[in-house]
Amino acid sequence: MKTAVYPGSFDPITKGHLDIIERGAKLFDKVIVSILVNTSKVSVFSVEERIKMIQESVSHLDNVEVEYFEGLLVHYMEANNYQIIIRGLRAFADFESEFQMASMNKKLYSDIEIVFLMTNINYSYISSTLIREIIKFGGNVQEMVPPSVYERIIEMYRG
Amino acid sequence: MKTAVYPGSFDPITKGHLDIIERGAKLFDKVIVSILVNTSKVSVFSVEERIKMIQESVSHLDNVEVEYFEGLLVHYMEANNYQIIIRGLRAFADFESEFQMASMNKKLYSDIEIVFLMTNINYSYISSTLIREIIKFGGNVQEMVPPSVYERIIEMYRG
Amino acid sequence: MKTAVYPGSFDPITKGHLDIIERGAKLFDKVIVSILVNTSKVSVFSVEERIKMIQESVSHLDNVEVEYFEGLLVHYMEANNYQIIIRGLRAFADFESEFQMASMNKKLYSDIEIVFLMTNINYSYISSTLIREIIKFGGNVQEMVPPSVYERIIEMYRG
Amino acid sequence: MKTAVYPGSFDPITKGHLDIIERGAKLFDKVIVSILVNTSKVSVFSVEERIKMIQESVSHLDNVEVEYFEGLLVHYMEANNYQIIIRGLRAFADFESEFQMASMNKKLYSDIEIVFLMTNINYSYISSTLIREIIKFGGNVQEMVPPSVYERIIEMYRG
Amino acid sequence: MKTAVYPGSFDPITKGHLDIIERGAKLFDKVIVSILVNTSKVSVFSVEERIKMIQESVSHLDNVEVEYFEGLLVHYMEANNYQIIIRGLRAFADFESEFQMASMNKKLYSDIEIVFLMTNINYSYISSTLIREIIKFGGNVQEMVPPSVYERIIEMYRG
Amino acid sequence: MKTAVYPGSFDPITKGHLDIIERGAKLFDKVIVSILVNTSKVSVFSVEERIKMIQESVSHLDNVEVEYFEGLLVHYMEANNYQIIIRGLRAFADFESEFQMASMNKKLYSDIEIVFLMTNINYSYISSTLIREIIKFGGNVQEMVPPSVYERIIEMYRG
Repeated sequence: MKTAVYPGSFDPITKGHLDIIERGAKLFDKVIVSILVNTSKVSVFSVEERIKMIQESVSHLDNVEVEYFEGLLVHYMEANNYQIIIRGLRAFADFESEFQMASMNKKLYSDIEIVFLMTNINYSYISSTLIREIIKFGGNVQEMVPPSVYERIIEMYRG
Repeated sequence: MKTAVYPGSFDPITKGHLDIIERGAKLFDKVIVSILVNTSKVSVFSVEERIKMIQESVSHLDNVEVEYFEGLLVHYMEANNYQIIIRGLRAFADFESEFQMASMNKKLYSDIEIVFLMTNINYSYISSTLIREIIKFGGNVQEMVPPSVYERIIEMYRG
Repeated sequence: MKTAVYPGSFDPITKGHLDIIERGAKLFDKVIVSILVNTSKVSVFSVEERIKMIQESVSHLDNVEVEYFEGLLVHYMEANNYQIIIRGLRAFADFESEFQMASMNKKLYSDIEIVFLMTNINYSYISSTLIREIIKFGGNVQEMVPPSVYERIIEMYRG
Repeated sequence: MKTAVYPGSFDPITKGHLDIIERGAKLFDKVIVSILVNTSKVSVFSVEERIKMIQESVSHLDNVEVEYFEGLLVHYMEANNYQIIIRGLRAFADFESEFQMASMNKKLYSDIEIVFLMTNINYSYISSTLIREIIKFGGNVQEMVPPSVYERIIEMYRG
Repeated sequence: MKTAVYPGSFDPITKGHLDIIERGAKLFDKVIVSILVNTSKVSVFSVEERIKMIQESVSHLDNVEVEYFEGLLVHYMEANNYQIIIRGLRAFADFESEFQMASMNKKLYSDIEIVFLMTNINYSYISSTLIREIIKFGGNVQEMVPPSVYERIIEMYRG
Repeated sequence: MKTAVYPGSFDPITKGHLDIIERGAKLFDKVIVSILVNTSKVSVFSVEERIKMIQESVSHLDNVEVEYFEGLLVHYMEANNYQIIIRGLRAFADFESEFQMASMNKKLYSDIEIVFLMTNINYSYISSTLIREIIKFGGNVQEMVPPSVYERIIEMYRG
């Protein structure tokens, strides 16, 4: 059975992320969406909120689970005997840092394989960083995030 | 009448910016230089100083005005019924983030059009970030900024 | 009156080109689509066919005309007293060569201004080169070209 | 059963290609190395030679087969009901054209999924084009190609 | 006598840096490894520790010395009458910012010449930033740093 | 004594090339400008013309010589016991292919060192390919080439 890990901050999960998850779920027997918990970075959504929003967004997919981890991705992979990483590549912005991290991670844990999927062109402009910026000023992100995320943002605006 | 907005931090305005403004002023009936006020970022020059330095630098151009705004560019554009954005592209560093922002902005406000002008090759090495770094250590930026900015920096050095 | 030239081979015109023309027609008083005739390069469509296909594709736009030229773009611009060039930038592939050509052209004819529009993200994967390759093997390009081009290709396939 | 196609010219197969095949063979149940036969391009090795060299190079892998096709990749994929494509990405040079082709191919055949693997950093400088150039001048490519290819080149040099 | 300066933060020195120093020492009569002291940035190693680790790592090279400076590189160069800068270029990530800084530095001090060496491909994935991240979580960086740095990190882990 | 080779087609030599030669002549004891003779490529200027134009352009430099070679650069370097290669990097276009060739050449001849100089920003738009295109259509390249090349082109136009 092939299990693949899709790591990220998911603060919040976007339609671009969801597209990668759906396609990964067709390629592998099981996909684990793994939230990297970075305690030294300020986040908009708590880990619990992020887990809940991802779970609601992937509820139509049988072979997708949600986990979270702290520290180095390779340590988490090794501890759980996971060996396949899925990463989404957007048009260009991600390529450089992805390649560097992939090389570094292979050096730290040689058994892993990193599989890259090109982000759907319709979502390639979406970044969580820009979304957080838009949220901050009350802009409308409905086209960029799954419905469950959008609802939560609306609540925040009201809140 | 075609009105174009040239948004930026302008902390401070550089010769590269001024070149874009002069060329934009030939292409469109009116160019509005719009200072993005980001209260959560430390700036070297106050908004008032930036306005003054830009006004002095564009005083030879009849169809250029200076404004400022807070929040999202698209909200500011929509509120003022502006539809054309001018952006300068330097040799390469800007391209990626510009493309992503342009796509995002078009999604948020579909009526806008973003017009890119390639920065004059003689100014393509200039970035406000590097200029602020040089100012911090008392370096000479005379060739990189308009005279009115240079005078203000000299005052700061003395001050 | 601001007249802008949109130069290219247009062998054939694509939906990406058409999108740039439509947006350019909103920015400027007149847009001239100018076919570069390169007699030393084999083309799929004759200059006459290309003119006809462009004319049919832009028939809904009042301020767009079609011309063609041989030799250097700057000579053609200078001879006709044109001063604005429109170029479409796709996600990334075009950027480098566009910048080099723009700098060269400004050196040869300092009065010109080159205005870049980012290609609509939905069309950013389209290149005439790939379309010609697909046509060669009888593939379906209906989503990539305007209707009048598609009809001509179907005729070619039958022919 | 997940079957993945690894398409290319393989003129000749390099150690970089072989590395991708070995890693692909761990990710999927079956990998088909598919030689694109381009009759309008001059090749160094005939299709038969290329098939033989690949077969010898992958003889240690149970789940790898060799095929060849003419025309469009998507037509070949559709005709054989294949849905997964593997592509190797070298440090940078490939990224742009790969992204464009991937988007185009998805448009022509929406069921396909393209999986990218980063080329092993030790092989990332290897390109078949440069190898053909070196072969032309009798240079030593032993470190860049599998043993069976190297033997064939030595024969050519003698021949 | 040609003296070249190799400036950087070296927090800590990596095998990639060491490779550049060794190659620079073959090209020039003397190489000065110059630590940029940035008091406004938090560092993992103190300036003294960094000096010591570099000195131990270059002890086999007769013509290499270690210095440090504060402020602008060009001021330091000018004050010491140094004119050649060595910079390592990794696969891609560095290119943009290097080019911009090089142009800026030449503007500030026209006598300097910047010599770029491509980082050894085996070390091109190494960045001090990622190494600091790995150290933070107790990962193993033995393959990425010289022995004297590795020993110090082990001490830190114990400490 | 440090001898550096500056290889290229020089069809024709440009002001960008000349700038690299002048700066290389300050860094090394001797610079050899080496024309790569590629008999399978059509050139505008014969090897003899290219030698003569380079010699006239570098006549003010004591430590510069002109040579030519056929075949692989590394074979030429090895046969003459040369070990340093100088390459000019323009703003961006060259970077990718330069890096690949550099890695390949180091693999074929491990003793060589490749030193990259950033092309003067004022010449970074100049490419011999574009110059040949302009010459073909009788355009004015006076600002892009040394005087001796310009004279020869004028003769060609008359001729």
